[in-house]
Amino acid sequence: MVLLRSELGSVLRSRRLRQRRTLRDVSAAAKVSLGYLSEVERGQKEASSELLASICDALGTPLWATLREVSDRMSAQESHWVPDSPEALFKDELAGVR
Amino acid sequence: MVLLRSELGSVLRSRRLRQRRTLRDVSAAAKVSLGYLSEVERGQKEASSELLASICDALGTPLWATLREVSDRMSAQESHWVPDSPEALFKDELAGVR
Repeated sequence: MVLLRSELGSVLRSRRLRQRRTLRDVSAAAKVSLGYLSEVERGQKEASSELLASICDALGTPLWATLREVSDRMSAQESHWVPDSPEALFKDELAGVR
Repeated sequence: MVLLRSELGSVLRSRRLRQRRTLRDVSAAAKVSLGYLSEVERGQKEASSELLASICDALGTPLWATLREVSDRMSAQESHWVPDSPEALFKDELAGVR
């Protein structure tokens, strides 16, 4: 299962890295602790709505644009999802054959 | 400030109502308590990523589509934002004139 906090963290992290900014810089600008931002970026902590707004602000990106990117990524993952083995695709049909 | 949990709750609530389903029905399908779902819908509680996925599942809607709708709403609110008084738009210019 793709989790919101993992995708959100990954999007926030890549935005920060694209701007060549450090965790220290963005956490200070967002007025959150460095440890909190780091955990959010790694998908280990759910960001509260207030702190998420603050982090997006610090990154100079609207929250809606961040959510749009998260949505796009999740949608792409869903449509490109492939099972581990090709057999899994046809397991119902195969079950009927066997 | 528009908060993610308020918009998310509002989108989840309108999806449930469009399906003419009760809190009881959706909370049971999502395996969350009725009180929790009600608080999430009213933007009073942050939904964890796992429970959000479960609620979207119960509504038969992908999480990415829910996030897309939240993003669209927030973006629309931002672009239609107007200040309380028309004067506020020109307060810097007016300050220079006075």
